[in-house]
Parts: sequence; structure tokens; C-alpha cells
Amino acid sequence: MDRFVTDAWYVAAESGDVGRAPLARTLLGRPVVLYRTGVGAPVALEDACPHKLAPLSGGTLRGDAIECGYHGLTFDPRGECVRAPGARTIPANACVPSLPAADHLGFVWVWTGDPAAAAPEKLPQVADYGRQGWTIGRGAPMRFAARWWLLAENLIDPAHTSFVHRSTVGGASGEDAPLRLERGSGDVCFGRWIEKSEPVPVMRTLGGVSGPVDRWQTYAFTAPQTGTVDFGAIAHGAPHTEAAMDAGFRIRTVMFITPETARSTRYYWFQMRNFAPGDDGVTASLLASYAHTFEEDRMLLEAIQTNEDALGVRRTVRLPIDAGGVRLARVMAALAASPAQRVPPREAA
Amino acid sequence: MDRFVTDAWYVAAESGDVGRAPLARTLLGRPVVLYRTGVGAPVALEDACPHKLAPLSGGTLRGDAIECGYHGLTFDPRGECVRAPGARTIPANACVPSLPAADHLGFVWVWTGDPAAAAPEKLPQVADYGRQGWTIGRGAPMRFAARWWLLAENLIDPAHTSFVHRSTVGGASGEDAPLRLERGSGDVCFGRWIEKSEPVPVMRTLGGVSGPVDRWQTYAFTAPQTGTVDFGAIAHGAPHTEAAMDAGFRIRTVMFITPETARSTRYYWFQMRNFAPGDDGVTASLLASYAHTFEEDRMLLEAIQTNEDALGVRRTVRLPIDAGGVRLARVMAALAASPAQRVPPREAA
Amino acid sequence: MDRFVTDAWYVAAESGDVGRAPLARTLLGRPVVLYRTGVGAPVALEDACPHKLAPLSGGTLRGDAIECGYHGLTFDPRGECVRAPGARTIPANACVPSLPAADHLGFVWVWTGDPAAAAPEKLPQVADYGRQGWTIGRGAPMRFAARWWLLAENLIDPAHTSFVHRSTVGGASGEDAPLRLERGSGDVCFGRWIEKSEPVPVMRTLGGVSGPVDRWQTYAFTAPQTGTVDFGAIAHGAPHTEAAMDAGFRIRTVMFITPETARSTRYYWFQMRNFAPGDDGVTASLLASYAHTFEEDRMLLEAIQTNEDALGVRRTVRLPIDAGGVRLARVMAALAASPAQRVPPREAA
Repeated sequence: MDRFVTDAWYVAAESGDVGRAPLARTLLGRPVVLYRTGVGAPVALEDACPHKLAPLSGGTLRGDAIECGYHGLTFDPRGECVRAPGARTIPANACVPSLPAADHLGFVWVWTGDPAAAAPEKLPQVADYGRQGWTIGRGAPMRFAARWWLLAENLIDPAHTSFVHRSTVGGASGEDAPLRLERGSGDVCFGRWIEKSEPVPVMRTLGGVSGPVDRWQTYAFTAPQTGTVDFGAIAHGAPHTEAAMDAGFRIRTVMFITPETARSTRYYWFQMRNFAPGDDGVTASLLASYAHTFEEDRMLLEAIQTNEDALGVRRTVRLPIDAGGVRLARVMAALAASPAQRVPPREAA
Repeated sequence: MDRFVTDAWYVAAESGDVGRAPLARTLLGRPVVLYRTGVGAPVALEDACPHKLAPLSGGTLRGDAIECGYHGLTFDPRGECVRAPGARTIPANACVPSLPAADHLGFVWVWTGDPAAAAPEKLPQVADYGRQGWTIGRGAPMRFAARWWLLAENLIDPAHTSFVHRSTVGGASGEDAPLRLERGSGDVCFGRWIEKSEPVPVMRTLGGVSGPVDRWQTYAFTAPQTGTVDFGAIAHGAPHTEAAMDAGFRIRTVMFITPETARSTRYYWFQMRNFAPGDDGVTASLLASYAHTFEEDRMLLEAIQTNEDALGVRRTVRLPIDAGGVRLARVMAALAASPAQRVPPREAA
Repeated sequence: MDRFVTDAWYVAAESGDVGRAPLARTLLGRPVVLYRTGVGAPVALEDACPHKLAPLSGGTLRGDAIECGYHGLTFDPRGECVRAPGARTIPANACVPSLPAADHLGFVWVWTGDPAAAAPEKLPQVADYGRQGWTIGRGAPMRFAARWWLLAENLIDPAHTSFVHRSTVGGASGEDAPLRLERGSGDVCFGRWIEKSEPVPVMRTLGGVSGPVDRWQTYAFTAPQTGTVDFGAIAHGAPHTEAAMDAGFRIRTVMFITPETARSTRYYWFQMRNFAPGDDGVTASLLASYAHTFEEDRMLLEAIQTNEDALGVRRTVRLPIDAGGVRLARVMAALAASPAQRVPPREAA
């Protein structure tokens, strides 16, 4: 899984970071400039003036258009050149690719594939987002120096928790509990119940959970960018129903990955919990704890990237714990091979 | 324009920086050591001993010769080996390429092509250099992390001034004034008159110019390395003659570019002005102001280099303002294709 | 000489640095993890779990085995997987290459070639190591950003001493004394007597040597990794016998080179002397002095590597002083071409 899946929405930035000052980002290896029009609509253009390739992000907004800082060529939100100083007529090829952009879930999303295929209904949906009783905490975005697939695979992999995150959300008691592919949200849903277990540290410290519990880890992934980890515990012996789980200790963490270059990936996330509603101290503490686990992941995945580069190989030992990743790889490969999936034609270059 | 034009003189260093301590430079991708003989003549040799490739710049001068710091092989200014410790006879291939070198305009120039084609009369000439009434200010050399052509193109491009240098030598009022290719100095001469304009900031602050003026920007380039910007103003309505211009506010800035590697370029410059003669404060202020504009260029051209590398393309939108660059590209391409233009044969390697 | 000679023992670390905490190293371009079993035997495994390539050095020792920090796969010292959490049977290809390892001369050595060919008797032998009357000083390991052959060649090259190390062990009086290939220790033995010479600085300051001396420099190299420099002086006119040399001022420095990557090399060394027995001040002073000369070599060889990369060539001027290097290159080439010399087969990748 090295190819980018281009026909998709990806998070480009947090909504609050996109405004009337141009913001430069790299999405799927491509420089993109983000800004907002006068009425606040997000705009995404390739961050390279078609004249000499100067980054438009170094330019100046003129109303809803952006003026290049080199020679003043000015482009509207559709990427059409509306002014070329010193030219009576604007050359037909003086346009810059415009990428569909939308605000959603507190982020600015950009469609990186064929613009004709973009549609708001293809934006990832998050169940219960904004619903009464769920408190949302927003994590600080991260950057991993690792190829995007290493992150995707990690996000459909409950088994690593017992080892990588032993000191936080993990705990050795679960490492041999069987994992099951399930019908559920997303393209792949993979998880397990660990019955009659001790609560793991965060359950004790933030949720006040004690005594033997049945706890669950369910990892769902909607290709190509959205991972959800559903994590919680109920008293041992209680029924394993959604209603009971909602009444127990439950955290849903939603993570969006955005390929930046062939070897780096941006990572955006928030989480929703059903306990300690509105308690900012608990929110901060949970975010810090999860940020710590993501740092553990980051160090590990970057070390794997380094090893892949040094060895020039990728291993293929396959274990039962890989069932989620294997299924997800199949979904991703189908997406990447789809006829709709093609790099949008460039203007003459 | 990626090929280097090798059959040419390039600035290697400021004259004052070349002395009896070997100085290492890279010219057109090639390591070069510079030093002076006992009588002060500049010497340029490939900075690699033919024995094991140790840089000669790490060695020691022995009279007019330079001794390698690894095994003591010693080379005279023509690159002939005059001593090889431990050897009764000196191997015929123990010589190092010598490059013609000359002091000129306060710089040490090196001819990077076939030494047989080097001639002092091919050194760039600067009109009025040292003439009575002109005060010279010498700028600090710069290094751009951008390919040499991006600099050359920028130096035959008056149009960017209105946008890149808006706060210093630019000014929006000129951005639509027509540019004309002219007969004049250099291979290409491209410029414009902006009539009945406000004086731009430096004219007001350093030259005391006020009221509506006719101002000019003329960019000339002599391939492959010399740019001259002639910039000034006369009272609106005065005749546009050389004599009137010499009596007005006039600054000629002369810039020499030296390709260092495929993606980096050295930049040397000085300027000549006809006002505030000998006033060191004005000299310092003008140099600071121009250094600031060159910093603006540097940041822009390095960002373009980054975009070219990321996108793997170079755009071809052509505008009337590009006429100077288009003509210069043709001159450069002819130079690069010339039969005289060949990499000098290397000794056996 | 760019190929690695794989069928050999190389120093991987100082013995004291390998313990119960996994230690990551790179040998011949390959990541290796080092640790010790409960009884202290050194273990070397490829530092990449065969499951997802996570570095095992980020894992945890479990008795004599090492547990991967990603999913808990656990490998014994032979590289066999002894545990795979969540799997009923361990896949046959879940094993990691194990490299023979041994303690010797205060270092942990690793055999990087076909394990079947490893044998303790192939470990380099150092004459008089530990013998009465010789004081040993151990130098701090170094890393050179240069390909291994540049170091090997430097270690069979007495001639550079007069130039690179003029201020320490060198001295101009010897630079024209003839060098002779000799029968002696190692594959190549190359050296010279410099008769009726002044003692060089270290002889005067640490050995109290004065007056005219006959001094010797003998450089021996046992391919592919062991250099020995025998360096000393006796009174001018004394017989040139081993017994007389042992009675004079004598230092043997033993250096082991370990290719790390194609362009970096690790360097381990100690020295043995016959004067000032047990005097820690003299030991420290000598080590500091030699470390200084090795720094001189490091700067020089790294500059050569830079020049090789910039010029894309390697020169072939051959001088009489190169006789040792020429013979060593022939020995190395034969080793590298040997049928035994092959990269060990990898498991399915």
C-alpha cells in the first residue's frame, strides 16, 4: 500500500487555522494553499503559480482571490486567473488547480482526486458527534515521519496495545484474548472482549472503575482515512449490549490520517467520552494520556520506516492478530485500483 | 536552462578573501582551491589531489606551489606536480587541472571552461566603473539555494519589482507600464519608463526626490553571468536622455551570478550612484536596502526551487513581461550548445 | 573496494557496553541488536522483527529471549520465535537472522557472513596481548563518515604520517626514506626505518628519548579488519633486532575497522607499550595524542569522501608509497570474490 488513494476527502488543517492569511500545506505530495473567502468559505488551490511556480501562499488575498507575490497574477477560488499585470489578454493556460474544500467536524477537508467526483456526502461521518451526553476533547495534530499505510495498519490493530501502550491504555491481561472481525461501522471492524480483567490505568484514574470488568477494544477503519477506537469497560457479568456499554466507561477516539509525502503523514484526532461530562480537567488529562500513547506509536512507526529503508524489504509474516490489517489492505488496494482513482489531469506544464 | 555555461569567467571570491591561505570554493559543481603566489597572482586549481582526492585546500603553500596534506605531493600554479615524496620519478598523470584566474572589479574571476579559450578581454566590462562622479558601494556576497537560471531570469525581469519589492524599490503605480526590449548594453536589455509617477521610497529617503517624476527601470544581462539594473528618476517632463538621467537620481547595480551546484548559486554585487558622492551613510543605507530586496528574492527563488522539486515540473505560461527572460534563455541556450562549450578533458581517473 | 567482505568477524561494540539492555548497531548496512543472556553470553540478532520490521532493540528481554515491543513476538538467541501472542501456531517464517557473536580482546565481535563459516579461530589474534611488560591503553571508539576502504588504505600507509601527523607522531625527516613490503604479521606488512633521525615529539615527551635515533614505522594489516602500527626508536647504531626494539621505545597500536554503511565506518582501537609500565598518566597522554592523530585522519578521509561524491571519480595515480595499499586491495578483492563470501539467504520477505 504505497500508492495514495486520491479520490477522497482528507483533513488539511483545523478549521480555526484557516482564515484570511494563506496557509501552506502538503497533501499527497502536492503543495496546497488554504484560505477563506470574505464570507468564510474555505478555498484550496495548488500552491504554485502556473507562471513560474512561486508558492501562492507567499502572496496576498485580494477579496476572494489570491495574488501571486512574484508578478501579481491573481486567481479566484476556482483557480481561474482574473488578472495578469502587463498582459492584455490572459493566457488560457494561466490557471491553477482548485481542490474542493469543506468545513466538517472542526476541520477543513480537501478532496484530492478528480474534482468532479467530490461530494459532501462522501465526507466521513462520525456517529453520535455532538449528541447530548458525549463530551468532546480535541487533540493536538501530529506529524509522523512514516508512510501513511503504517499508520492505517496501526489503527486497525488492537493487539499492539498490550505491548506498545503497556503503561497507559494497554495491560498484559488481554494480550491473548482472541480478536474477531465484526460487522460494525466502517469497512473493517476488528476487536475483542477481555473478560474478567483488571481495569487498565486510565479506567481507574479517570473513570473510577474498580473490580473485575469485561473490557472491550474495537478498532474500526473507514478507508482511506478514518480510524475509530472504541474502548471501554462494564462490570464483569453485565450484558454486552450497546446500551450497557453506553452506561459503562466508554471512550471513542476518532483519528484522521492525511498522507503528506511518500514518507510522512499528518494525524488529526478528537475523542468523545460518556463520563465526567464537561469536566475540563478530565478532558485535558485524557488528551494528555492519549497524546502520550500516540507518541509511543510515532516513535515505533518511524523506527519501522527507518528499518524498511535500511533493509529495502517489507516482511510478510502473517499472524491471526493481523486479520484487520489484511482486510483493510484489500479494501485500500481496491480503492487505489478503481478507475475513478486517477490523478487529475494537469494543465500544460 | 539547467546546463552550466562553462566557457566563461565567473566570480569565485572577493579579491580580498584570496591570499596566502588556501580557500575552498565550489564552481559549477567542481571543487576549486584559490590562493595567491608570492607576487600576488591569483591561482585556481581543482581542489582534489590526483593521488587520493584529498582537498588541496587542506594543504600548505610552499612558495608558489601547494603541498597536499595527505602525502606531500606538491603542485605549481599550472597544476604540474613538482614533488612526490618517496618517488624517484613523478608519474605523468600526477597533475591537477589549473583554471585561469584573474583579479577584476574587486573580485577573483575563474574561467571554468577550456583554458585555451580563456582571455582577459572576455571578462565582463562595467561602464563608468571608477569614473569621476560615481560612488561605489560593495554588497555582501550571498548564496541562494536555487538553480542559477532562476537568478538569471530574475535579473532580466523588471516586472517582479512591483510585487516582490513593494515595500522598498517597487511601488504599485508601475505594474502595468509596458516593458520594452531595447538596444542597449548586454545581450538583453529590457525595461520601462513609468511616467508621472510618485517617487518610490528610496528616492525620497536617500535622494530627496519629490513631486511627480518619470522613473525608469532598465534591466540588462550579459550572458552568462552579469546583470545590471539601471534605476532612477528625473522630473516629470524632462527629456529622457542619458545626460538628463545622469543629472537625475540614478543607481546602477551590477550583479554577478556563479553557479555553485545544480541547486545553489553564489551572488556577488556592487552598486554605483550619482548622488550623495562619498557619503558613507548613504552608501550603507542603500546597500542595506538592496540587501533587503535580494533577501526577498532569495526567499522567493528558494521557494520556487522547492516547488519545482516537489512537483517535478516547470511551468510554461508565457506573459509579455517575460520577453526579457525568453530572449535571455535563447542566448544562454546558444552558448550552452556552442562547440567551444565543452567540459575540459579530465586526466585519467 | 566498495563491496563489504561479509565472511568475517567485526567488532560490534565494546564488551562493557553490551549487557541486559538491548543495544542497536548497524553492521555492513544491516541493523543488529546486541544483548547478553542471563549467563553473560553475547547475542546478536537482526534488529528487525520479521512481523512488521519493528526494531527488536526497542523491546524487552524475557530471560534469554527478546520480546518485540510492537506485538510481543519473542525470539530466542538463535532467532527462533518462541512466542507469538494471539497465534496458536507460530508461522515457520517467523524467525530472525541470528549472527554469531563472541567476546574477544575486550570487544563483542559479530560474524556477518554465513553463520556456518563462523569459527572462533578466525577471530583476529594480537601478539603479546596481555603479556608481562606491556601496558595496554584502550582508546575511545570513533565513527568516520567515510567508506571503509579509505580507512583500510590509511592503515597500511606509513607515508601519510609525515604530512597528516606532522605535529604529533610525524616529522619531516622521514618523508623520503624508502618503504619496504616485508614478511611479517598480517596479510600485508609495509614499513621503513628512518635512520639517524631526531626523535619525534611523543618519543621525547613521554619516553624521554633524546639524541639521534633509528626509528621505525611498520604498518601491518590482516584483512579485512585489523590494522597494527608498530612504531618506535632505538639509539642510532644499535642492531635492528626484535630484542633491541623491545628494549627501546615501542608502541603497537591495534585498530579494528567495522563497515557501518556504504559511507560510514566504526573504528575501535587500543595500544600496547613497553615503557612507563602501569603509568596511568602516560597511558592517558598517549591515548589523547593518538586520538588527536585519528581525528586528523578522520577529517582528511571525510573530506576525501566528500570529494569522491562531488567528482564522481576516484583517482589512480600510483606512487611507490602506495605499495602496501595496492597489495592490500588485492587481498581484499580476493576475499570479496571468494565463493564463501555471500550474503546469507534471507527468510521470505
